[in-house]
Amino acid sequence: MPRRYAFGRADEATHPDSIRATLAELVSTFIFVFAGEGSVLALGKISMHHKLYKETGPPASGLVMIALAHALALFAAVAASINVSGGHVNPAVTFAALVGGRISVVRAIYYWVAQILGSIIASLLLRLVTNGMRPVGFYVASGVGELHGLILEIVLTFGLVYVVYATAIDPKRGSLGIMAPLAIGLIVGANILVGGPFDGAAMNPARAFGPSLVGWRWKNHWIYWLGPFLGGGLAAIIYEYMVIPTEPPLHTHHQPLAPEDY
Amino acid sequence: MPRRYAFGRADEATHPDSIRATLAELVSTFIFVFAGEGSVLALGKISMHHKLYKETGPPASGLVMIALAHALALFAAVAASINVSGGHVNPAVTFAALVGGRISVVRAIYYWVAQILGSIIASLLLRLVTNGMRPVGFYVASGVGELHGLILEIVLTFGLVYVVYATAIDPKRGSLGIMAPLAIGLIVGANILVGGPFDGAAMNPARAFGPSLVGWRWKNHWIYWLGPFLGGGLAAIIYEYMVIPTEPPLHTHHQPLAPEDY
Amino acid sequence: MPRRYAFGRADEATHPDSIRATLAELVSTFIFVFAGEGSVLALGKISMHHKLYKETGPPASGLVMIALAHALALFAAVAASINVSGGHVNPAVTFAALVGGRISVVRAIYYWVAQILGSIIASLLLRLVTNGMRPVGFYVASGVGELHGLILEIVLTFGLVYVVYATAIDPKRGSLGIMAPLAIGLIVGANILVGGPFDGAAMNPARAFGPSLVGWRWKNHWIYWLGPFLGGGLAAIIYEYMVIPTEPPLHTHHQPLAPEDY
Amino acid sequence: MPRRYAFGRADEATHPDSIRATLAELVSTFIFVFAGEGSVLALGKISMHHKLYKETGPPASGLVMIALAHALALFAAVAASINVSGGHVNPAVTFAALVGGRISVVRAIYYWVAQILGSIIASLLLRLVTNGMRPVGFYVASGVGELHGLILEIVLTFGLVYVVYATAIDPKRGSLGIMAPLAIGLIVGANILVGGPFDGAAMNPARAFGPSLVGWRWKNHWIYWLGPFLGGGLAAIIYEYMVIPTEPPLHTHHQPLAPEDY
Repeated sequence: MPRRYAFGRADEATHPDSIRATLAELVSTFIFVFAGEGSVLALGKISMHHKLYKETGPPASGLVMIALAHALALFAAVAASINVSGGHVNPAVTFAALVGGRISVVRAIYYWVAQILGSIIASLLLRLVTNGMRPVGFYVASGVGELHGLILEIVLTFGLVYVVYATAIDPKRGSLGIMAPLAIGLIVGANILVGGPFDGAAMNPARAFGPSLVGWRWKNHWIYWLGPFLGGGLAAIIYEYMVIPTEPPLHTHHQPLAPEDY
Repeated sequence: MPRRYAFGRADEATHPDSIRATLAELVSTFIFVFAGEGSVLALGKISMHHKLYKETGPPASGLVMIALAHALALFAAVAASINVSGGHVNPAVTFAALVGGRISVVRAIYYWVAQILGSIIASLLLRLVTNGMRPVGFYVASGVGELHGLILEIVLTFGLVYVVYATAIDPKRGSLGIMAPLAIGLIVGANILVGGPFDGAAMNPARAFGPSLVGWRWKNHWIYWLGPFLGGGLAAIIYEYMVIPTEPPLHTHHQPLAPEDY
Repeated sequence: MPRRYAFGRADEATHPDSIRATLAELVSTFIFVFAGEGSVLALGKISMHHKLYKETGPPASGLVMIALAHALALFAAVAASINVSGGHVNPAVTFAALVGGRISVVRAIYYWVAQILGSIIASLLLRLVTNGMRPVGFYVASGVGELHGLILEIVLTFGLVYVVYATAIDPKRGSLGIMAPLAIGLIVGANILVGGPFDGAAMNPARAFGPSLVGWRWKNHWIYWLGPFLGGGLAAIIYEYMVIPTEPPLHTHHQPLAPEDY
Repeated sequence: MPRRYAFGRADEATHPDSIRATLAELVSTFIFVFAGEGSVLALGKISMHHKLYKETGPPASGLVMIALAHALALFAAVAASINVSGGHVNPAVTFAALVGGRISVVRAIYYWVAQILGSIIASLLLRLVTNGMRPVGFYVASGVGELHGLILEIVLTFGLVYVVYATAIDPKRGSLGIMAPLAIGLIVGANILVGGPFDGAAMNPARAFGPSLVGWRWKNHWIYWLGPFLGGGLAAIIYEYMVIPTEPPLHTHHQPLAPEDY
């Protein structure tokens, strides 16, 4: 099955289904980035008015707040698009689907443009409604190096895309697919609770790009493209070529979730 | 399909199904507003007894607390009514369903009255059980203008109603509909984590009206009607007329969640 | 359908299905109370070692911690028993099912005994593993009266049992039933975020009784029996006799979640 | 059914299905431990830069942060492997499945090796990306004894494995199985909110072992093997031999969730 659809059908670029899917990716990425980057600005707004935070720096509850905003919004954004576009909402997921031969190059390019546009529009509107707060984006914290940040993005995105593959792409996922948007949203939340204090934990180049552009902050920006693409591609290769393939079944009595159970 | 049911059937106003649906909207909005506005008063109660909060203002964990109360209660309230009334629990969602031609004007008016009544009863009971605390409702924070607040309500409600449309109304939603109440509740939670410090993030005129009436606070109140109706209407138009329509399918190998997968 | 099964079948008391269901209620209530009351003691343990909390009293994040412990554990406890016993895990829910004529008096008595036993065992084990910390249970906060607390328990339990009825008992719930344990767990979490600072928000006499017995604290205890039974009974009457009954269907185009969608 | 598969089939050790399942356990345990232990290190990183935390010790929001990281990541990790390996991600769950006769000894050994390897790799990578922070693992807090910690691990793991059995293994679980990964993840989150301040609440020897090895901290380590195995084994025996067995059904009108409802 790999690469079979690598160039798509001649009419894919103009077919209404492609247009609808592309629109769905744009809107869902917009919703996700507005909530994700917006929660970072909201914590900034709270800190501005909070006497103690100005002295101590943001607390653990600030990280919980940001992780939950990303997790809950991504769940809803993926749920809102999974039936129309596959619910990527992330150029690294689209890249992984391409590596695994699950979408065509044409469609991947459409999605990438839509995801980046959605992120830019969200960042512009955030700057407007916050009366000019400058989006923050991502950077590596003091005390850790760029290479640490890169490896962290690879590992975190590997985990995310492995979950995407298992719950949303695996053709044998069965009824588990209902839980895919939730699993995808919540692994991102969990990973932010790990990576947040070290490198921000983007796992998504579109999430990083819009705020960087609108806030014009480019320090360490390359990490948030290279890391997610490497981690996502690695997960795709492992899942597509090592976990999915199967021999004629050995009849064990171990009981995986099977469609007929539902 | 748009506007086809705009005036409903002659007997809709008195049919038992309409009465049951209206009752379900009232009770679910009551449950949601009691938890939502109640969590705001609960934070007030904590702050009253907490030496530090009196000095610094409520912290990030206060916002997490309020966002979770809204998210979890709205999920349960929508789940408790989705089979009976469609689970609107929000005049802006009802307006969007009307714009998309999904319910009749008669039913929309019933729902609006029920939602507003549910919110008023919740606010009155909150004032009673808290021994007289005055409901707070919504207003624009210092440092942002009314127009910023209005645009923010439009954007946040756009995201909410887009998710409602994709998961609960789209006739092709399939098994994804099981997750609709959760997606609706959690996008509201995520959006509060963004909009909370700026304009409170109502996204729901009924949520705003009851506390305003019982607490008699009307500053900026118009924003929480106009914003949600504009944002919700916009989401309905985009989803109903741009995302739902489809051509005879191009057989791609891209794999959306299909009912037969379950 | 009301009261039809009020006395059950002659063999119900000794039938293996009744025994299994009773055991399931005991274990699930044990799991829930251990996590719920345990999180209260855990916050006490944190406060003991936290210099600031000793001065200021527990913060908003303490309430989030307790609400999440209850919500997540109740979801799991209901999920673990819903197929075996109906997943009551709460004498007020059992009472509501009895009021609605959904279970027999014999079975209700079995469940009540099991729920109370589960709560007592959990409280005893908590006292043991915490090296003797005294369970806290529930009481009305300073600044609110016993009557306020009683009304609050009625309202909060009304919301909980209405959700239980709509998602777990309503014979027309369809595929929505999959989400019942989550909706039940999370409405309890939301309601604790409201009622916590005022009266603790038990909504469950078994949850209140075990810790009261083992910690030997009985102040205001009657509230946590009378309130939940009144609120739960009221929800059962409204849902059973006003929301469930239906006429031959009017064919509207409004689209509730129907089993055939899945 | 007990012990029927105790030695498996002759070809099980080399069959591709066993290899795939073992790989799935390794990757899912890796994802879970990276997020779980990673969140502990992330809280350490926040505390390093947070003036107040250095004085007071980590707050309630720190415990919420760690509990959420474990809960959300475990949900995603179980969802990502449940169809391939059964989604154990925990040697105590594998042991319980063995005690209940649900998997063979050969497969259990494969899983145990994979789970421990996944945990070690996660711990090594954490040490790398954090620029050398030493994993913390688990130990009993001051004020409670080793025996208290052991009993606490037994009780907490009993709750976890009972939920695993009811939602993921019980052959009559029906459509409830869709919720198994979420119930498993969230009961772990709830239990951490209880056990965290007393003994860390591992409930999983692999979760404890990797960080202990890489951080070279072995104090109290035996508790986190013996406790989970005893608690998990006890849950398996109770559920397998007391809850699952059933007589020819008594036709009651009590309504458990039945597959035909969906």
